Amino acid sequence: MNRFFLRSRFQTFILLTPVLAAATSFAEQPSLMPWPSQIDIKSGTMSLAHPLRVEISGCDARLVHAVDRFRAQLSLQTGDHYRHQDPEANENAVLTIHCSSQGLPVQSVSEDESYALEVDAGGAKLDAPTPLGAMHGLQTLLQLAEWGPGGWDIPAVRVQDTPRFAWRGLMIDVSRHFMPLDQLEREIDGMAAVKLNVLHVHLSDDQGFRVESKKAPKLQLLASEGMFYTQDQIRELVAFARERGVRIIPEFDVPGHSTCWTVAYPELASDTPSPRLVRNQTDQQLPPLDPTNEKVYKLLDDVFGEMARLFPDAYFHIGGDEVDPKYWNKSEHIQAFMKTHDLKDADALQAMFNKRLLAIVTKHGKRMIGWDEILVPELPKESMIQSWRGPKALAVAAKQGFSTILSAGYYIDLMYPASYHYLVDPLAGDAANLTPEEQKRILGGEAAEWAEYITPENADNRIWPRTAAVAERYWSPASVRDVDSMYARLDRVSTELEFFGLTHRSSQERMLARLAGSAPKDVVMVLAETLEPVKEYERGETHEFDADMPLNQFIDALSPESEASRRFNRLVDRALSNPQDLVARRDVRRILERWRENDALLQPYVSASWPLQSIVVFSTPVSQLGSVGLEALDAMEDNVVVTAGEHAAHLDVLKTAEAHHSMLQIAVTPGVRKLVEAEKLTR
Amino acid sequence: MNRFFLRSRFQTFILLTPVLAAATSFAEQPSLMPWPSQIDIKSGTMSLAHPLRVEISGCDARLVHAVDRFRAQLSLQTGDHYRHQDPEANENAVLTIHCSSQGLPVQSVSEDESYALEVDAGGAKLDAPTPLGAMHGLQTLLQLAEWGPGGWDIPAVRVQDTPRFAWRGLMIDVSRHFMPLDQLEREIDGMAAVKLNVLHVHLSDDQGFRVESKKAPKLQLLASEGMFYTQDQIRELVAFARERGVRIIPEFDVPGHSTCWTVAYPELASDTPSPRLVRNQTDQQLPPLDPTNEKVYKLLDDVFGEMARLFPDAYFHIGGDEVDPKYWNKSEHIQAFMKTHDLKDADALQAMFNKRLLAIVTKHGKRMIGWDEILVPELPKESMIQSWRGPKALAVAAKQGFSTILSAGYYIDLMYPASYHYLVDPLAGDAANLTPEEQKRILGGEAAEWAEYITPENADNRIWPRTAAVAERYWSPASVRDVDSMYARLDRVSTELEFFGLTHRSSQERMLARLAGSAPKDVVMVLAETLEPVKEYERGETHEFDADMPLNQFIDALSPESEASRRFNRLVDRALSNPQDLVARRDVRRILERWRENDALLQPYVSASWPLQSIVVFSTPVSQLGSVGLEALDAMEDNVVVTAGEHAAHLDVLKTAEAHHSMLQIAVTPGVRKLVEAEKLTR
Repeated sequence: MNRFFLRSRFQTFILLTPVLAAATSFAEQPSLMPWPSQIDIKSGTMSLAHPLRVEISGCDARLVHAVDRFRAQLSLQTGDHYRHQDPEANENAVLTIHCSSQGLPVQSVSEDESYALEVDAGGAKLDAPTPLGAMHGLQTLLQLAEWGPGGWDIPAVRVQDTPRFAWRGLMIDVSRHFMPLDQLEREIDGMAAVKLNVLHVHLSDDQGFRVESKKAPKLQLLASEGMFYTQDQIRELVAFARERGVRIIPEFDVPGHSTCWTVAYPELASDTPSPRLVRNQTDQQLPPLDPTNEKVYKLLDDVFGEMARLFPDAYFHIGGDEVDPKYWNKSEHIQAFMKTHDLKDADALQAMFNKRLLAIVTKHGKRMIGWDEILVPELPKESMIQSWRGPKALAVAAKQGFSTILSAGYYIDLMYPASYHYLVDPLAGDAANLTPEEQKRILGGEAAEWAEYITPENADNRIWPRTAAVAERYWSPASVRDVDSMYARLDRVSTELEFFGLTHRSSQERMLARLAGSAPKDVVMVLAETLEPVKEYERGETHEFDADMPLNQFIDALSPESEASRRFNRLVDRALSNPQDLVARRDVRRILERWRENDALLQPYVSASWPLQSIVVFSTPVSQLGSVGLEALDAMEDNVVVTAGEHAAHLDVLKTAEAHHSMLQIAVTPGVRKLVEAEKLTR
Repeated sequence: MNRFFLRSRFQTFILLTPVLAAATSFAEQPSLMPWPSQIDIKSGTMSLAHPLRVEISGCDARLVHAVDRFRAQLSLQTGDHYRHQDPEANENAVLTIHCSSQGLPVQSVSEDESYALEVDAGGAKLDAPTPLGAMHGLQTLLQLAEWGPGGWDIPAVRVQDTPRFAWRGLMIDVSRHFMPLDQLEREIDGMAAVKLNVLHVHLSDDQGFRVESKKAPKLQLLASEGMFYTQDQIRELVAFARERGVRIIPEFDVPGHSTCWTVAYPELASDTPSPRLVRNQTDQQLPPLDPTNEKVYKLLDDVFGEMARLFPDAYFHIGGDEVDPKYWNKSEHIQAFMKTHDLKDADALQAMFNKRLLAIVTKHGKRMIGWDEILVPELPKESMIQSWRGPKALAVAAKQGFSTILSAGYYIDLMYPASYHYLVDPLAGDAANLTPEEQKRILGGEAAEWAEYITPENADNRIWPRTAAVAERYWSPASVRDVDSMYARLDRVSTELEFFGLTHRSSQERMLARLAGSAPKDVVMVLAETLEPVKEYERGETHEFDADMPLNQFIDALSPESEASRRFNRLVDRALSNPQDLVARRDVRRILERWRENDALLQPYVSASWPLQSIVVFSTPVSQLGSVGLEALDAMEDNVVVTAGEHAAHLDVLKTAEAHHSMLQIAVTPGVRKLVEAEKLTR
């Protein structure tokens, strides 16, 4: 394996997808994520043993701060000191940064974010057309830093890098569960580390309005439960993000998802509104805003105007999704209005509403974004569509001339593995058949973290590290899609992200230690590591959403994707595909043995522990998976056949293990199933 | 094992040491640390399913804030919501707190810290003579909270609790490496959690002066490298500590360990002073202050007076340790002074210095504390002695009538395991022979964390969780000294401490992930878990101290005590003492197998990694320990004998494995040695 390492470090080659796919070990790859458009790994390294001298030219003040952060972050990541530039010291390592231009006063989607980086033994040279590109280059340098044989160094490389998509976003819902400002800032640091450039904040929904309005203070006073950002905090957030090359897009969802508006202003609802914010599913009376009421437009004009000044970005998101037509259809005065104005149905009414909204948003100097639903034939082309419905809707919008971004396939709250989101491509599916001109309208995508089931405690774990894989999809060439390479790099990037202050690993550790209570942690973990949260919308379908429910269960603590399960399943692949891989086979055997024994070790602690009671239902099935897997492995190793009856019994065990309970599912059944399916049967 | 749990939860008994010792599983014990003077565990529980109503009477404002913190902490520990008291809610659980008196304006060593706590299904009742006792009772409640069969609850108990010693301290050196204020505050939260009540801050030494002085600003301007607490920060720290029942004792070390003073005021040194602060061992020219110079007393009067006002506690620490007599002995004017004043040697000169110091400290309204060295026959009895030299020095001081505290045996920077410090008793050794009157002068002890090798990154890991075991020694009855029980509870208290914001586990995880780099973490960890930092002063003896050296090596990341190694050694004890314990024997076998195989898995990554190069020297020995242990285990299981030659070869392997390298040592040799020593030899 050392051979591979040497090859990558000391031999020049351009790392393209075929090479990625062919490598059997990924340890030799620099842990870059997103992978650059072009990278040439040369021989030699730049040593980080000495303090670092940095010279900047042609950039704006953001680069000075970015270099300060780079020094601080390099110090954290390495445990060494790179904090200060000592004018007297003889500093061998030099980093030279040059920008050809200063950035725009408000970061724009059209700014050039490319950079060129050259590292050799004498130092590093970073050139970029804009400060944005230079900041991306600094992140690449941070990811390149690694332990060499003599200490920390940066491999000699030549990188030419430019993003595939200009809009690389993360949407965070802060309405269902509020997130404190420092947490949003932490997420922005993580985003910048993986070259994402848009934080879209879902600021209002049925559960709360999360920004201070001076024009309509009832919004935060009556509809936030005290949890909102002050205008000063928003200004801080915007400045914080700008310093890191991230744009902030505010979303205020109207006319549906608008209980927060109607709790504050009941007279603007299309029907008798809910007297309070939505706390759980039985609260869903949810009448939308009344599009026939002129006061609605007056209020939106006031508040959107105020917010348009607060959020400097050129884009402004008005939501527009999931309006239940029943309230409009059953209201006499709305029906009368529709007849008068020749609006044939609820869609037409919403289209009229959106046109008025577009006028307001435009008046305040912004381009309007909305979810799929706002797309109707009448919608003016200045609007931008964010697609949650899928590639088809995306392609339709682009074809019709709208700028679009894709979020379908990137709903990271649905608990799918990184590999799933990683392989979703904004230009695949229907979009692949668009003309190049039409494809250009697909600006990128946004990972979306809806917040029904996240709190400040587990939010990082829900967002990271999977969002780094999505970031690679948005930035890197389409051909970079080797899943094994992605996971190898993701693991190391995940380590680095914790040094940015993110807590996706440490909070999970703490939560699992809490759940184990006085039971032996290792015994609890053998079972817990085989489990994952259920996917898609199954949690909400089986357990009614309740915003007041504590999120301290196994489903809340366990990562969406079980690392241990993924490794087991991969290990089975190795053991099956290569009978000579005795290490893999032995490791599979050990894991199966541990499962087989674990049930007996866990049972004594169950009756006294509420959390263990919630997962004990999986304990016997996992032990049985261990037994079945071992029988299949024995049969394979001894080259014996099993009877049809035995095989059927094995399949039954698998079937039992595939059942979901407590909003969890066993994640290791695919591997065991493969072992069982490899059994040779008596004829 | 469930049986034990049931017994403790549903059967009344007073848990005394014999019971602790007799239990084979400690899962049933509440994870209390320190263990209370008297606890009666009753049947039933108080459910924490509902929000908590708290009623306070008779206490001062500190209790209101303490209850706010209690709610916040309970919320963090449980992941549930106990933050607000909802006046409208029907809150079943009630906590009633009563204090018989308000506390003193400045917390005193003489305040009664006892409390009585009664919990039953209807609620909890906490009574205390002072707010300090009530705050301790709240910490006990937090530790009692646990998962029951139906969710979080608190077992029904009756606790009568009072500390064995009034002075229960932690000393932190912030001179060798500075600690930011928020970190000190975090340590105070941890201290309060385990009922420690004195934070002694070692504020000046050869490496820096760490408080802003307005009287002598050169001290922080010339002798802190910019790292010092402002007076406002000190006021914040003192208030923060007071709110948590913790006293702050400042130490300014004179006349030795005083390079910071002489860098700022060269004219006060006993010899040509060092032009700069001590950075490493070759800097050690270290002339002490000149006791014959009246300007010294003028400056100390000014600065100590200023500091006496800043730190409200009744005690003031002047250090006084480790003065090198050579500077005084070779100075003509000092020798002349000594002759004139009939001072026969350096000790007599320091005694004179200390008398002048005592007058200054007394004038400013304080009682003086110093390390052992200040104790000379002439020292007035108002002084207090902190003993680092040992139980003998402690007993001598107490016998002579001095108040004393013990720190010898509690130097937690020396990397000894929790069990070592845990079993050091301030009243053991020579102190056991003192009269009760003399013993009363031994007020308690202080764990001491000297800071040559700690940074903000690993400081928590150096202090916690071991300090919780020391806290139990200071608080609990002397008879509470079962090491297995201590470790079982320490593990759970350690989990709780992380919810107080301490990072002793998470920072270690991050640092080890950094050290593993691109090598497989599990392979690196199999080796790293067998290792511990070298003990006592071996690090400094083998590698010259250098304050600028990055502390990012394995020795800096690994806990002083390897949990995994301790468990392995315990497992061997179980396997050897009970041949029927097949689980223990099987687990021992698996661990040995993993070691045996690990070397081959690790080697491919070594040449490219600086940190792996530093530990690879242990890789083969650990693999050999695996082989040897397995052979010994095989011999035991098959009841066969080994030849004398084989046995000797096994002992050779052990000997090799006992060598220290890279400031590390293998911690699992004791267990393997026991296996080898159990081998039956051919006659």
